[in-house]
Amino acid sequence: MPSSTDSSTPLQIIPLGGVEEIGLNMTVFRFGSDIIVVDSGLMFPEEDMLGIDFVIPDFSYLIENRDSIRGILLTHGHEDHTGALPFVLNEIKAPVYGTPLTLALVKEKLIEHEIDDIELIPVRPRDTVNLGAFRIEFIRITHSIVDGVALGITTPVGSIVHTGDFKLDPTPVDGELMDFHKFSEYGEKGTLFLLSDSTNSEKGGFTFSEKEVRRAFEDVFSRSSGRIIISTFASNIHRIQQAVDVAVQFNRKVIMCGRSIVTNSQIALDHGYLKIPQDEWMRLETLKDIPDEQVVIITTGSQGEPLSVLSRIASDEHKHIKIKPGDTVILSAKAIPGNERSIGRIINRLMKRGAEVIYEKVSEIHVSGHASKEELKLMMNLVKPKFFIPIHGEYRQLNQHARLAEKSGISKENIFILEDGSILESDGNTCARAGKATSGRIFIDGKGITGVEDIVLRDRRRLGHDGIVIVITGIEKVSKKIISGPDIITKGFVFEEISADFINEAKGVVSEALAGMDEDTITDTASVQAKIRSALKKHIKNTMERRPMIMPIIMEV
Amino acid sequence: MPSSTDSSTPLQIIPLGGVEEIGLNMTVFRFGSDIIVVDSGLMFPEEDMLGIDFVIPDFSYLIENRDSIRGILLTHGHEDHTGALPFVLNEIKAPVYGTPLTLALVKEKLIEHEIDDIELIPVRPRDTVNLGAFRIEFIRITHSIVDGVALGITTPVGSIVHTGDFKLDPTPVDGELMDFHKFSEYGEKGTLFLLSDSTNSEKGGFTFSEKEVRRAFEDVFSRSSGRIIISTFASNIHRIQQAVDVAVQFNRKVIMCGRSIVTNSQIALDHGYLKIPQDEWMRLETLKDIPDEQVVIITTGSQGEPLSVLSRIASDEHKHIKIKPGDTVILSAKAIPGNERSIGRIINRLMKRGAEVIYEKVSEIHVSGHASKEELKLMMNLVKPKFFIPIHGEYRQLNQHARLAEKSGISKENIFILEDGSILESDGNTCARAGKATSGRIFIDGKGITGVEDIVLRDRRRLGHDGIVIVITGIEKVSKKIISGPDIITKGFVFEEISADFINEAKGVVSEALAGMDEDTITDTASVQAKIRSALKKHIKNTMERRPMIMPIIMEV
Repeated sequence: MPSSTDSSTPLQIIPLGGVEEIGLNMTVFRFGSDIIVVDSGLMFPEEDMLGIDFVIPDFSYLIENRDSIRGILLTHGHEDHTGALPFVLNEIKAPVYGTPLTLALVKEKLIEHEIDDIELIPVRPRDTVNLGAFRIEFIRITHSIVDGVALGITTPVGSIVHTGDFKLDPTPVDGELMDFHKFSEYGEKGTLFLLSDSTNSEKGGFTFSEKEVRRAFEDVFSRSSGRIIISTFASNIHRIQQAVDVAVQFNRKVIMCGRSIVTNSQIALDHGYLKIPQDEWMRLETLKDIPDEQVVIITTGSQGEPLSVLSRIASDEHKHIKIKPGDTVILSAKAIPGNERSIGRIINRLMKRGAEVIYEKVSEIHVSGHASKEELKLMMNLVKPKFFIPIHGEYRQLNQHARLAEKSGISKENIFILEDGSILESDGNTCARAGKATSGRIFIDGKGITGVEDIVLRDRRRLGHDGIVIVITGIEKVSKKIISGPDIITKGFVFEEISADFINEAKGVVSEALAGMDEDTITDTASVQAKIRSALKKHIKNTMERRPMIMPIIMEV
Repeated sequence: MPSSTDSSTPLQIIPLGGVEEIGLNMTVFRFGSDIIVVDSGLMFPEEDMLGIDFVIPDFSYLIENRDSIRGILLTHGHEDHTGALPFVLNEIKAPVYGTPLTLALVKEKLIEHEIDDIELIPVRPRDTVNLGAFRIEFIRITHSIVDGVALGITTPVGSIVHTGDFKLDPTPVDGELMDFHKFSEYGEKGTLFLLSDSTNSEKGGFTFSEKEVRRAFEDVFSRSSGRIIISTFASNIHRIQQAVDVAVQFNRKVIMCGRSIVTNSQIALDHGYLKIPQDEWMRLETLKDIPDEQVVIITTGSQGEPLSVLSRIASDEHKHIKIKPGDTVILSAKAIPGNERSIGRIINRLMKRGAEVIYEKVSEIHVSGHASKEELKLMMNLVKPKFFIPIHGEYRQLNQHARLAEKSGISKENIFILEDGSILESDGNTCARAGKATSGRIFIDGKGITGVEDIVLRDRRRLGHDGIVIVITGIEKVSKKIISGPDIITKGFVFEEISADFINEAKGVVSEALAGMDEDTITDTASVQAKIRSALKKHIKNTMERRPMIMPIIMEV
């Protein structure tokens, strides 16, 4: 594929997701007819997205420009950076670059989606690849998943650093330090753009090292004489490693429980990112044979997910694990906003069954994977960019990050808070907004790959909020006389057994409305429906102050 | 009304709400045929209570025993302690005791509900009233609303202290200190039961004084040269007082905006709980005439409530207040769990319009109204109860509070974590559980005073999650032949414009199912419906992995 560029070709930077939300991360870099895509993430639904499993970015722009896409580059294996990949790769057959663990996690997902025609190209930190006009260098960072990288991207008009997600962990569990030298090298040579992780830009100071969690684990282990259950994110291999290490230190066996944690641990083990002494990893079925004081169960469910192992344990619905006094449960994670109540319910239930529960409010049992203010400023000091783009956050986080940049000496007019779909253009000297690309969100529910439309979601909110009232009327085709009904059925509106009064009243209201119509109008189904809907809507609003969906069904026979 | 008791009559303590949740506070004390009720609170709905405005306790027990109820005692004016009163007083004509501000706030609500046949009896701290076998003394506490009290209740078998909501504020804004002497007097004489506020039992140390917020306000005011908008709870009169005081100090005029804040401020002003220099309180309409640097707007909406003034300002839908660069907005409140995302949306929108936004993550702009661990222990040390009942909390908070009690020297078997409806009995020496009273939750939606049933909520969740598929079939009465349909309508399921394929398939599935039925079965509407439902359910689950509500309508003509 030829790359057509001339001296006036600008570099374009287009975030398709991740700059109006936490999650949905996807950034496009374009130079002439060469496009590279960094990350393809999903987002978990917000509370008003009823029945939605997850959200992915609208990637129409990629479909429209599919012939220009030279490759998709992944910074790390978290779902908010890789979860949309199966959907994207269903449409776009571009090679995917990532570190071995990232690709191993992605491969698992592609197999689930029966996608097997994609080239997955493993890279290591400090490797470089050339894709059209771009040369991409992978740079080691530290984060809450192992094997994460940032990207140094060299283009014809200047260099770009894209941090991916990062923190500055001075004592990472695997000893793999962030590559300060590489970042500073970009700074020394002169960097045109820095795109940097804003997730924790509201937090002062430094984020604690992952190793701090080990101290908290040791503290709990030294006080517990019963079983210990640790729940965390399945992808947090370092956290799992630390749980395993402390288990071994305290002479406990490890049982992994739950599909995702077993899968991820096996992948990490196979690729050398997780180390478990062979006779310490026991099968769940052996639980009953191990003395309580020698058991550690590692599982998921730290966000209160209703189908998770932890949730089933809390509700006493788990086949093998029944909570008893003496058990200690550690929720080693921070509540993602919106999950506080589900997590609270699980804590209540576990405590009621007699477990000691250790959670973020009462212990330092979790550290974040994202850089706080001081680390963010340090990144700017290392890379010394001319232009700055905060990414990975809602407006509030991007805004805080932009202020930090200003404080760090980047001039205000060189800082760009973008929106999903914003096109930013640069010739290497100046930089300006240049319109918008198609962008938005696709709602995924069940198997459908096409997504759920906004109007369907609106209907769901309406139905969920006030229920539905169905009015059925039979009209004779020729005479246009009402020969059956009006009958009324409600769901989610009022309790059926006590709704007899309402239904009789409503029948009266509908009959009256129909009686008032002249013969011409009654031949027009839409008019009859509108009449029924408006009469009943008014009646219900006045008597009950509610607004159910009203569905008049006219059956002509 | 006679009080029938003999020497073997036990004291009963029955929480009807507030010990399995934050909110819904209501406790019954019974001795023989004398009942007193402390508080009657509501709870705001949890995220799965779709379309519900608020929740009140099931007070069947009070209705069943209405002739024994000697009075309802209110500790303070917050809705989680008074919000169920209109519903209770609709059924039970008992006198209501409270401090002047509490009663003034309650009166407003009773007027809204057109209840005017209730005796509201004002009391002051250290007043006592006799109600049947009970003598109740009101004791000053400090909390995030002014004029709050705890109760000292003397019964024939011993004394009880019920703290209500409290914190130990050493420098309250109105100078009204907690009445340490009274609490210690109960301790000195010997207290049988302490019921104490558990809301903040997970928090270490001491809760900051309300006065600390003044320092934060001063800091923001000294940095701001544009308008300042402060949002807080309408009932937090001390917070409003401090905003007013700092406004005066910085030569700014005060505009109150929003119905509840104006009403509450007026009530507080009328009763002497709030002091605003007369020419400092301006009307909203004068906003345009006051220079920006002389404006403070006080409003509600700190929880992201969609219809609040702040929410409308953030969406640029407010008639008088349009955000512009230079404005500063202070969210002077803590996010109630579950509201984080709505609050976040408002912060994003305000910032996008150019406002500086000060919120709990970035500034110490709020202090809690509830006692932390050290204060809770101090309360136990003052009152020295024999038996301890943690109240006001979910199990996790009650459990933490129970542990504090143990650490404070109350023996484990004398600590009772109760459930809503638990009956606890004591003869003054021993104490034991004695069955359960009717208890539960009533869901209020719109005007209905009867509440929404669980089954209706289940239907709403189902409808909201996956939508509804309606199948309409016309059957001839006599021949039992299908003469119309099956027709299919969906709502909240798939987008109508692209659902043609689904509808055709579904029609096929239903027709096939009907064709397979013999003539005997087809005469039975319920069997036909069941057949349609099961065939379609299976089809949708297999092809789309969804579970909409399926509603087969058979019309006989």
